[in-house]
Amino acid sequence: MPTTFLGSALRGTFFFIFGLWWSVRYPLKYLRRKDNAESQHSFGRAEIFEGAVKAFFALIGILVEQFVPTGPHLQLYSPKTQSWTDLTHWHYSTVYLFFLLSGIMDMVSHSPLKLPPGLDRLSLSVALFIEGLLFCFRDYSNAALDQHLHSLLAMAIFAGALCALLEVFLRDHIILETFRTSSFLLQGSWLWQIGSVLSPPWGGPGWDQTDHSNLTFLTMCFCWHYAGALAVLAANSAASRCCNESCQLKFGDIDVELDCGLCLRGAKRSSGGALLPESSSDDK
Amino acid sequence: MPTTFLGSALRGTFFFIFGLWWSVRYPLKYLRRKDNAESQHSFGRAEIFEGAVKAFFALIGILVEQFVPTGPHLQLYSPKTQSWTDLTHWHYSTVYLFFLLSGIMDMVSHSPLKLPPGLDRLSLSVALFIEGLLFCFRDYSNAALDQHLHSLLAMAIFAGALCALLEVFLRDHIILETFRTSSFLLQGSWLWQIGSVLSPPWGGPGWDQTDHSNLTFLTMCFCWHYAGALAVLAANSAASRCCNESCQLKFGDIDVELDCGLCLRGAKRSSGGALLPESSSDDK
Amino acid sequence: MPTTFLGSALRGTFFFIFGLWWSVRYPLKYLRRKDNAESQHSFGRAEIFEGAVKAFFALIGILVEQFVPTGPHLQLYSPKTQSWTDLTHWHYSTVYLFFLLSGIMDMVSHSPLKLPPGLDRLSLSVALFIEGLLFCFRDYSNAALDQHLHSLLAMAIFAGALCALLEVFLRDHIILETFRTSSFLLQGSWLWQIGSVLSPPWGGPGWDQTDHSNLTFLTMCFCWHYAGALAVLAANSAASRCCNESCQLKFGDIDVELDCGLCLRGAKRSSGGALLPESSSDDK
Amino acid sequence: MPTTFLGSALRGTFFFIFGLWWSVRYPLKYLRRKDNAESQHSFGRAEIFEGAVKAFFALIGILVEQFVPTGPHLQLYSPKTQSWTDLTHWHYSTVYLFFLLSGIMDMVSHSPLKLPPGLDRLSLSVALFIEGLLFCFRDYSNAALDQHLHSLLAMAIFAGALCALLEVFLRDHIILETFRTSSFLLQGSWLWQIGSVLSPPWGGPGWDQTDHSNLTFLTMCFCWHYAGALAVLAANSAASRCCNESCQLKFGDIDVELDCGLCLRGAKRSSGGALLPESSSDDK
Repeated sequence: MPTTFLGSALRGTFFFIFGLWWSVRYPLKYLRRKDNAESQHSFGRAEIFEGAVKAFFALIGILVEQFVPTGPHLQLYSPKTQSWTDLTHWHYSTVYLFFLLSGIMDMVSHSPLKLPPGLDRLSLSVALFIEGLLFCFRDYSNAALDQHLHSLLAMAIFAGALCALLEVFLRDHIILETFRTSSFLLQGSWLWQIGSVLSPPWGGPGWDQTDHSNLTFLTMCFCWHYAGALAVLAANSAASRCCNESCQLKFGDIDVELDCGLCLRGAKRSSGGALLPESSSDDK
Repeated sequence: MPTTFLGSALRGTFFFIFGLWWSVRYPLKYLRRKDNAESQHSFGRAEIFEGAVKAFFALIGILVEQFVPTGPHLQLYSPKTQSWTDLTHWHYSTVYLFFLLSGIMDMVSHSPLKLPPGLDRLSLSVALFIEGLLFCFRDYSNAALDQHLHSLLAMAIFAGALCALLEVFLRDHIILETFRTSSFLLQGSWLWQIGSVLSPPWGGPGWDQTDHSNLTFLTMCFCWHYAGALAVLAANSAASRCCNESCQLKFGDIDVELDCGLCLRGAKRSSGGALLPESSSDDK
Repeated sequence: MPTTFLGSALRGTFFFIFGLWWSVRYPLKYLRRKDNAESQHSFGRAEIFEGAVKAFFALIGILVEQFVPTGPHLQLYSPKTQSWTDLTHWHYSTVYLFFLLSGIMDMVSHSPLKLPPGLDRLSLSVALFIEGLLFCFRDYSNAALDQHLHSLLAMAIFAGALCALLEVFLRDHIILETFRTSSFLLQGSWLWQIGSVLSPPWGGPGWDQTDHSNLTFLTMCFCWHYAGALAVLAANSAASRCCNESCQLKFGDIDVELDCGLCLRGAKRSSGGALLPESSSDDK
Repeated sequence: MPTTFLGSALRGTFFFIFGLWWSVRYPLKYLRRKDNAESQHSFGRAEIFEGAVKAFFALIGILVEQFVPTGPHLQLYSPKTQSWTDLTHWHYSTVYLFFLLSGIMDMVSHSPLKLPPGLDRLSLSVALFIEGLLFCFRDYSNAALDQHLHSLLAMAIFAGALCALLEVFLRDHIILETFRTSSFLLQGSWLWQIGSVLSPPWGGPGWDQTDHSNLTFLTMCFCWHYAGALAVLAANSAASRCCNESCQLKFGDIDVELDCGLCLRGAKRSSGGALLPESSSDDK
């Protein structure tokens, strides 16, 4: 079954929105963490929310793949035709299943259950590795362009997976978070490109699969998508920085009060008798 | 010589049981370590026991491979037919030999000989790499499905090997231990799948080697096996957690006494005069 | 479009000069850092200068690629011939674009904006990965020698990219900086070699693409280039060391005064009241 | 030019002797380091000696390769036959050149010049990578068995190279040193095997290049060589341990005196005021 534009674009939109959200969230987290130790709690809630959204969309994705009119309706083997039914739908269902698991793991690992930290990143990494693996071993049956497009996609996916794997060990590393965000933006926009190359939304057949200059052009195009992803990332980071600063200016007085309160409480909580709260507030 | 169902299933069972055992042991170790520094001794004994079991089964495996009626009986080259005899049996014997070495190393490195820590993980990693290497270079002679199944297996093996290699440097890391456990569960259940695909236990020939949709389906199936392995892992972790907590509730009073005793003794042993035993027992 | 000698030599010169510059700068930085904590400021300025030079030459490169008489003049698709125009020019423009981004990032990340450290190395690493990716997926259309030369080049590029990636996490590591320098020197001199093999400057056709002994010889030649790069690196390091020492001898008195001033100020600045030369000896 | 048994065996002997020497030296170093901080000086001298031996044999190797009767006598291109002369001899000369560089770097980096630590391991790693690269890109011209044997060799070489690269960052790590030793032993014994397979010393032609069971057997044989290397390593480690303990028993009294002397001097040198504050502040 060929790739449809609508399916590819929907998947792309999902990854792209996640990338956009992270491109705002991580710079803010980084700036806040530098300023004071506040708001760990709110970021924990953000992770739970993220996990819920991821799990929800993955579940929707599985249901849609299974129960669209052309879908397999949970039937795996058709005894009538003695063949597997709609392996492409099952293929995407499998990918979504692992994102569903990753979403559930995000929610569970930030709950009060005290799971070992890093399980959420490991499950994201596993979901991405499985996605890449399935794209690598799909049946392209001599469609060179199709295979090339998906091997470039797999590159973006594996880069994200490796980055998430590193985050298991180097948690809250802003460079890794930025790189992961850029890989999601790239994956999202490249899925749109794949859709428009293989089944153009304005009708007509896809691009010529045998023309080698198409392959060369699309490799270059992949690089431009990444440059675009970096530009979006930079713009969002700058915007969130400006926003953060203007907020602090506006609510400066309130912030100072809040911060002081938090500092005092934080100092009392963390200082195991080694540091007197008075001296810490005098320092600053 | 084709893969037999019985051999594949036996090997799979071995890896699966190891995975099951670890999926109970590591969560317990993690929970106990968080609670107090107790029970390092008992885990050292568990590692020696594990090594002994591994070495024992590897030795049995070598003997079975060599001395089954169709086996080579330690004969490597047959001068009569001017060819190597039963390379598949020798192939598995070689794999078991390295697991035997790994088992012996487990036992030796937790003995009072004071070998450098990490040698046990290195030897496990070497055993897995050798296993993967031998599966990669087997003679598949144009059986595409056979090769595909074993290359997926090799992926699970190499993932486990890399994980064990990392554990040489990051010892007692719960995430790595969990991942290694999942790779063993996957390897175990996948060996069952290989056996049932290539030589179905209910008789009849294996699956069609030339049908490409079989390859696509089995790649997906590999992912489902991993999802299943993760489910088993999660269930066992949750069960061992519940069990751990109910044990602590039931034997709470005894535990407190035991813990205090251990703490006192531990504090006296480890505190180089820096920490007074009385204050540490007062803290808790 | 075949590789021209002039283009290849110009690119090579650019990388080689960067390598030469680093082979002097990093040993000096290492020696100064060992002697005292001085001159971090001047090295920050050196990085900004480097970034500006890199960005400037990358911009020149893009303009030249686009607006030479045979260039595409920003036209990507020619509706007349129904084909992509001059993909080689666009290919190099893309490579330069990422080096332009890397140069800008170098300048921005050493400005007073306080970006997270490591973004400059990440952007260099991305630029090198993109360069390597584009060389890997170029259309060599059965020219075995051409492909072999560029795959050796890609090896040098990826080695540099991996090294820059490691520097994100291990900043100011002299071994990594040395290795990156050597990879740039190698890349520079190998680009000259590629140019002279594929389109000799003294006219005549390139080397025989089908002769396998040419491939074997050029692999060896690549190793000699690396030996040469190491020799240049060693000579420059030794020279900068001698120069550093003779400078210190000549201006010894001034240095001592300057150093003392800097040390005192540094001590005052870094010790947040925690360290008073007298109190530190009392503490212990 | 085909592989000769004598050349392959000589190379193998060189690597094997290095492996044997390390299999005694590193366990001793580890045991001594655990006992006391002594003998860093003597190990520095051992490294210089090692480097000298390595450089000497590499130089001999280059001279032999160039000036044997069938060698190229420093002539690279023969204008008479319009072809490269004896690329295999040049190939090995290149490999030896990098080991020569590595030997020189070993000597220089343990001299009083105070080079950054890790350069010796980096140069060893580069030498091994170059060796592996040259074996990968050799012209095997359809000799499947030849290529398979050398790709297994390249695996042993790259494992050693990666290990040496890790040692740049994790210096004096006993596990890495042990693994590097085992990779050298494997490489040495495998070179003997290659020689005896491709040109048997007892005359006659090499093994059948087209028989696939030979490939399967030799892959297994490679694993047995590694098992043998591990056995040699274990025996030598155990022997050096026993020897170390009996030496200490015999010369116990002398040792104690020497150790005390060294300890006191070492303590005076290294103790930054922690042991005796007065003397350390007087030193500076």
